[in-house]
Amino acid sequence: MRNFIFDNPTRIIFGQGMITNIGNEVRRFGTRVLLVYGQESIKKHGIYDQVISSLNDANLSTVEFPGVKSNPVLSHALKGIELARNEDVDVILAVGGGSVIDTAKTIAVGVKADPDDDIWEFFTYKKKIRDALPVLTVVTISASASEMNPAAVITKEEDAQKFSIRSPLIQPKTSILDPTVLFSLSPAYSAYSAVDMITHMLEGYFNNSEHDSPLQNRLVEGIMKTVMESTEVILNNPENYNARANIMWSATLAFNGLTTAGMGAISLPAHMIEHSLSALYNIAHGAGLSITLPGWMKYAVHKNPAKFARLGREIFAIEETDDLTAGVEGIDRLKRWFSLIGSPTSLQEVDIPGDDIDTIAENAAVLARLWRLKDYTRNVISEILHLC
Amino acid sequence: MRNFIFDNPTRIIFGQGMITNIGNEVRRFGTRVLLVYGQESIKKHGIYDQVISSLNDANLSTVEFPGVKSNPVLSHALKGIELARNEDVDVILAVGGGSVIDTAKTIAVGVKADPDDDIWEFFTYKKKIRDALPVLTVVTISASASEMNPAAVITKEEDAQKFSIRSPLIQPKTSILDPTVLFSLSPAYSAYSAVDMITHMLEGYFNNSEHDSPLQNRLVEGIMKTVMESTEVILNNPENYNARANIMWSATLAFNGLTTAGMGAISLPAHMIEHSLSALYNIAHGAGLSITLPGWMKYAVHKNPAKFARLGREIFAIEETDDLTAGVEGIDRLKRWFSLIGSPTSLQEVDIPGDDIDTIAENAAVLARLWRLKDYTRNVISEILHLC
Repeated sequence: MRNFIFDNPTRIIFGQGMITNIGNEVRRFGTRVLLVYGQESIKKHGIYDQVISSLNDANLSTVEFPGVKSNPVLSHALKGIELARNEDVDVILAVGGGSVIDTAKTIAVGVKADPDDDIWEFFTYKKKIRDALPVLTVVTISASASEMNPAAVITKEEDAQKFSIRSPLIQPKTSILDPTVLFSLSPAYSAYSAVDMITHMLEGYFNNSEHDSPLQNRLVEGIMKTVMESTEVILNNPENYNARANIMWSATLAFNGLTTAGMGAISLPAHMIEHSLSALYNIAHGAGLSITLPGWMKYAVHKNPAKFARLGREIFAIEETDDLTAGVEGIDRLKRWFSLIGSPTSLQEVDIPGDDIDTIAENAAVLARLWRLKDYTRNVISEILHLC
Repeated sequence: MRNFIFDNPTRIIFGQGMITNIGNEVRRFGTRVLLVYGQESIKKHGIYDQVISSLNDANLSTVEFPGVKSNPVLSHALKGIELARNEDVDVILAVGGGSVIDTAKTIAVGVKADPDDDIWEFFTYKKKIRDALPVLTVVTISASASEMNPAAVITKEEDAQKFSIRSPLIQPKTSILDPTVLFSLSPAYSAYSAVDMITHMLEGYFNNSEHDSPLQNRLVEGIMKTVMESTEVILNNPENYNARANIMWSATLAFNGLTTAGMGAISLPAHMIEHSLSALYNIAHGAGLSITLPGWMKYAVHKNPAKFARLGREIFAIEETDDLTAGVEGIDRLKRWFSLIGSPTSLQEVDIPGDDIDTIAENAAVLARLWRLKDYTRNVISEILHLC
């Protein structure tokens, strides 16, 4: 096991009826709150009313900043920063999924930056984050784990760059997770979310600098089994509380540092390549991952067949004794499972032409350099994309 | 899944060579530190020197309070409170295992209590904890998870009562876990520690108010397998770093709230009865648990054979299809494993006469009432003790 620091102070308030606590939680950090959210859907499903009523009960003054879209963009976050500055808010509340939370985190950093700062330089690691407003969240789509981690991903649309920031300063103070808000999540987005959670864990499982780690392997396998069986339940019965609850808490644990603590440095090649798909084609992040993850796995299985075989045996009960054969069969089973739940598994399926592979690889290679993934040259990325 | 709050802000700094960070961590909370520890063993193994040197480097002024024994007692903690008051310390550092950390937590509460307060009333829940000095830890025995939870257990020796307190105020701010400090832990204490970790998890696994929870089951089973296989490794090779590291982090995760989040109320009957063994006979906590846990399991298997069968099948690969038979076989296998690693599994083995059972049951029944375990009358406890 490698040395690590596990420092995850986010307070999680989990369960049906818990959204009523958000006002008092926000009140611990300020009195004037910027409420960041996405589309009108939170109004249709009563979440908005619950939040506003709790904020009012806590005597908070609220400034609204709606309109976050999936694959959230820098230009929109910049408007949020301007609004937050003009309105002099002292705390940010995100009500939404990863896109909303990541926009809120970006605003939190931006408000405290020098007004002359180019915010994008935090994402290209040219500037270091030194201060941020406190961020709290009410989760409405579970997948990113942004509600309990210190990262945010934003796309700069004019450069088609989907980059990220990371700082303990943007770790949410409190996140409220009420599984009933997931009841109305569409089958497609429920599936994409499951893919995202699984990818978060498998990137660590396969791409860590520790040789092997029995405890972390088991944590990943246990959470992954839970995500898979619960997703199958909710696709037939979207209002199954326990299945939604298991998914919701699994999503958080899948990428809050728990499964990777002790694994050393982690690389995220499937995410890296997917960022280019989202940035160039604006497809849903999870849909992109169910294409790039199996493609990457087919590329990587030859480098560590034993570990891929372990996944196949633990998750799909594959009995084949040859590691490479078991590993390949496991990848195939995972791909079929992604199809079964309705997530695309090839570039073709989402109408991305093979001729675009060079362009995508070029885009991804920029991020590979930024993330210091030396092995992922343009040629390697292109090879992986051909396996997608 | 039941509603829950997961709020665990302890910063964990894990790994070889990490003790050098303790001075700077303590410095975040104060300048005058009470250093609580146990016996001379931390001096023999170089831990003391590392700590003192780091505290000096951070320009802290240190007051020492050694002499904590296993099954730590109130009278000793009271001396620590007096010393901390007289010396006007503003932060407490525990260097040790659960006994030392729990003493440090008790001192942290006591210093901030009214000088006229009877400290024991916090343990009998007559008084509520309203303030405490910050506590940090350097762990030298991994078992209690006290380094990452808000609880402390102390014995009031004159009444033979081993009771506990619980408050977010005594949650350690930072805990440093260096697996190399476990290299010198004796085989007996390594075994008792493993028993303690396993019991912490199985109490939640079997005694929660949620019907069943697939995610939490898998977390428990995954951590338990890791503890068992790593303990077998270190009993043959006490300086196997990875095995010690896996045990050390498993111990923390086993009782830091992770495995029980969402399970609703948890009761700890095997711990409750063990507290009486420790209080009356001063045997090691883990040694007591390897007696009371299997005894309690034999009593409880009839109430929920399916869950006991699950444990037998998952941990010991028992193939028996009848749940009760599989459950009973699992208990037997666990008991044999406790014996294999050198922990006692009967009252007889530790020379506690059968004639004492009434006295023990009477002692435990007091705690059962305090912990509101209504089903555990003196007669039920006596029945369980006869199974021990």
